[in-house]
Amino acid sequence: MSKAYERLEKVLEKTMALQTALILFEWDNETLAPEEAGAHTARVIGALSEEYYNMVAGDEMKEAIEACEKEEGLTDVEKAIVKEAKETREQLVCIPAEEYRDNAQLVSEATRVWSKAKKENDFDKFVPTLKKVVDYQKKFASYRAKDGVKLYDSMLDLYEKGFNMELLDQFFDELKEAIVPLIREIKERGKKIENAFLTGDYPEEKQRELAEFLAEYVGFDFNKGVLAVSAHPFTTNLHNHDVRITTHYSDHVDSSLFSVIHEAGHGIYELGIGDDLTQTLVGQGASMGMHESQSRFFENIIGRNAAFWVPLYEKLQSIFPEQLKGVSREQFVEAINKAEPGLIRTEADELTYSLHVLIRYEIEKMIIEEDLDLKKLPEIWADKYEEYLGIRPENASEGVLQDIHWSQGSFGYFPSYALGSAFGAQLYYHMKKEMDFEGLLERGEIGVIREYLRENVHRFGKLKTSREILKDTTGEDFNPKYYIQYLKEKYSRLYDL
Amino acid sequence: MSKAYERLEKVLEKTMALQTALILFEWDNETLAPEEAGAHTARVIGALSEEYYNMVAGDEMKEAIEACEKEEGLTDVEKAIVKEAKETREQLVCIPAEEYRDNAQLVSEATRVWSKAKKENDFDKFVPTLKKVVDYQKKFASYRAKDGVKLYDSMLDLYEKGFNMELLDQFFDELKEAIVPLIREIKERGKKIENAFLTGDYPEEKQRELAEFLAEYVGFDFNKGVLAVSAHPFTTNLHNHDVRITTHYSDHVDSSLFSVIHEAGHGIYELGIGDDLTQTLVGQGASMGMHESQSRFFENIIGRNAAFWVPLYEKLQSIFPEQLKGVSREQFVEAINKAEPGLIRTEADELTYSLHVLIRYEIEKMIIEEDLDLKKLPEIWADKYEEYLGIRPENASEGVLQDIHWSQGSFGYFPSYALGSAFGAQLYYHMKKEMDFEGLLERGEIGVIREYLRENVHRFGKLKTSREILKDTTGEDFNPKYYIQYLKEKYSRLYDL
Repeated sequence: MSKAYERLEKVLEKTMALQTALILFEWDNETLAPEEAGAHTARVIGALSEEYYNMVAGDEMKEAIEACEKEEGLTDVEKAIVKEAKETREQLVCIPAEEYRDNAQLVSEATRVWSKAKKENDFDKFVPTLKKVVDYQKKFASYRAKDGVKLYDSMLDLYEKGFNMELLDQFFDELKEAIVPLIREIKERGKKIENAFLTGDYPEEKQRELAEFLAEYVGFDFNKGVLAVSAHPFTTNLHNHDVRITTHYSDHVDSSLFSVIHEAGHGIYELGIGDDLTQTLVGQGASMGMHESQSRFFENIIGRNAAFWVPLYEKLQSIFPEQLKGVSREQFVEAINKAEPGLIRTEADELTYSLHVLIRYEIEKMIIEEDLDLKKLPEIWADKYEEYLGIRPENASEGVLQDIHWSQGSFGYFPSYALGSAFGAQLYYHMKKEMDFEGLLERGEIGVIREYLRENVHRFGKLKTSREILKDTTGEDFNPKYYIQYLKEKYSRLYDL
Repeated sequence: MSKAYERLEKVLEKTMALQTALILFEWDNETLAPEEAGAHTARVIGALSEEYYNMVAGDEMKEAIEACEKEEGLTDVEKAIVKEAKETREQLVCIPAEEYRDNAQLVSEATRVWSKAKKENDFDKFVPTLKKVVDYQKKFASYRAKDGVKLYDSMLDLYEKGFNMELLDQFFDELKEAIVPLIREIKERGKKIENAFLTGDYPEEKQRELAEFLAEYVGFDFNKGVLAVSAHPFTTNLHNHDVRITTHYSDHVDSSLFSVIHEAGHGIYELGIGDDLTQTLVGQGASMGMHESQSRFFENIIGRNAAFWVPLYEKLQSIFPEQLKGVSREQFVEAINKAEPGLIRTEADELTYSLHVLIRYEIEKMIIEEDLDLKKLPEIWADKYEEYLGIRPENASEGVLQDIHWSQGSFGYFPSYALGSAFGAQLYYHMKKEMDFEGLLERGEIGVIREYLRENVHRFGKLKTSREILKDTTGEDFNPKYYIQYLKEKYSRLYDL
């Protein structure tokens, strides 16, 4: 190993350690920490974050990166780490330290204001704070943006490298054109699907038993992983030997069931990252979208697949003999795939979900690129829901205030959700050519599918972008047609259209 | 606040943040982290520890302390923090960085070797490693020790400021003289106590219900605290608004029951530390011994008190109606206080416990001060058990290999356990003069007792030493006679002597 790289590695080890500590604090806060701990623990988190900032922004890091860039004999992984270090540093130091700190405070404050406004169903209360958040995000994007790059494109690039409005406009336009009429058609002449039995007296203990069974079944390794409970399900990891997922339990059995498979998908991605990459800057998933592609792949393409339940449905019925009495496997599979326009993104089914994202994408473009009067947001939001989904929110809480993202300044994040589904569909159609996908699921040989994803997606960490992964695996750049094909085929069949 | 102190506070905030992160990693490792995480997480912990070392040993800390020492207008708390910072720093920097690192590695290795030797019941295998640990500890003690201070005294001072062999010899001599004959007398002519009903089918879920109830009953605040499960019960805290205790469940109901009250005692100490002190260098318990005094106070003086069970026994019986059928409160109280010499310290009753500690104290003195041939340890250990407790270990696993402490280099730690009991007894006899102690317990007014301890012990953190706390509260320096009086009175009564 070269002297220069050794030096960089030493600095990075410290920054990674601080980052890992911050991740553990966040995990702990979401899953276990006592109610009153927050304010005091915030001091600790503040000090660690400041130390992290100083290390990344500091001269030692700068000089180490520069020395590495002059170096000849670096390995490919080392080169990728140097590149990532440089980008991480540039994204941070282009923002003046004072503004960086101010924004961190603003965001923490904004989350509280948003939460209160949502509870009180009062969007106007949120507007002045949201305005500040938007202004900071625009400013930061302008610092980052290279000549001629639009602000929203710079934001999109942060979450999904290689994607911009040009690509996304095309993607979402195709989606809108296909899905809006499909949803209308289902409503008008699709067959009726019964799913009432998914709601009821499903004891938490039994749901936990099912959750652990399913996570393990799809390949989440409990020797390197943990399943806990939190208000909102999420996945996090300290490294590829310590990956943690959460779920929540309610009287909707399918909610926890598919949230566990979804988070297990995220988890399996992180577990599959190579030992040579973990605990380095390229030792995480390739992008937000690629991560979401894997969680949605496990949740929907695998978990809501009729074939998946062939070897499992008896087991499910044995856990809930009363609740599923008289429900056939076919009825169960139809119920977990029922599509129905709703107002809340996180509760949306596989089909209508993409339109929730589309609406946010269209509005974010207006906010960032068109300097929209934010007071008009609830109206715009409601109009779009009515136009695309045929339903209109009665108030801001079930409308424009439902998501936390904007209060956190995460503009450009939402498209990843839809892109993830589209990446997954593209992988799926390619895999069907290479293997008997549904046959494997029917025989319970899910390991073959998981191993294929590990080999082609997971193990590379951030060494490839999502577009490179798609290209190398499927032989084709990102192509939205597969996602549309997937939704059309699946839902036409399901609803006898 | 003075400029100098402000500067010190800034450095200390970072070191405290790193320390708090390390505490959280340790907690996580003991309670939740997946099995295979260890080796990877060790890298993170190593990097954070190194950063901690560099910060404490660094020039910034040195200069800030020196500047504060020249300052006139510091408050008493500020002065105490400066003093503690100086001591912490001196204890660290007197050890060459290389030896410090070597020892950290050695100790981690030694714990593994000890664990294996214990499992295989092979003390000889442990001897070479133990020799290295002892040598390092002696070396470190010689670095720390002021002129003329003996090595073991320097070790004792680390855990219990103001205590040395002179004081402890006297303490343990008095103890031995009183307790060895008392135990013999109980064996020869004490009445028989039945405790078989404490072992049996006590479902874990019911034990958990009891554990949560009891922790809360004695005053452990779950808004600022957490109860989890770990292999060995322990208490830790991030600050006074986040205190965490653990327990374990077995078929001995009294084991988890009293371990929860014990850890709750530790926890209540940390919860009681003043808001002005928490998250500073003086924001922890005064000493190992004083901490142990509070846990043992709650476990034994409160929890094994007949009066404690007056308002509680019905509740206990309602949780375990089958298991405690026909067992009167009086029988239960006798059973939980039964004294019987055993080989294992952690399973010892209140009476014989002090002799387990005495034996370790006598042997540690020989190891450190007399340059004992370590190969002879099993024999010496067995002889002492036979002499003081009348039983002889058959092998090293149930003898000299039972405790982890020596493998971790913690020489001088054991006496704290007995000192803690003695501190507690001294506080108890004084409190009996100030309040109707048993009456309060009978009426379930345990809050009065807890508040007295908070007011006189907990809130001061490290502002006072254990001897100062005793002096200020009871009007008397440490006096071992109360502990002996307590044990004699309690066990004579219990065994009708």
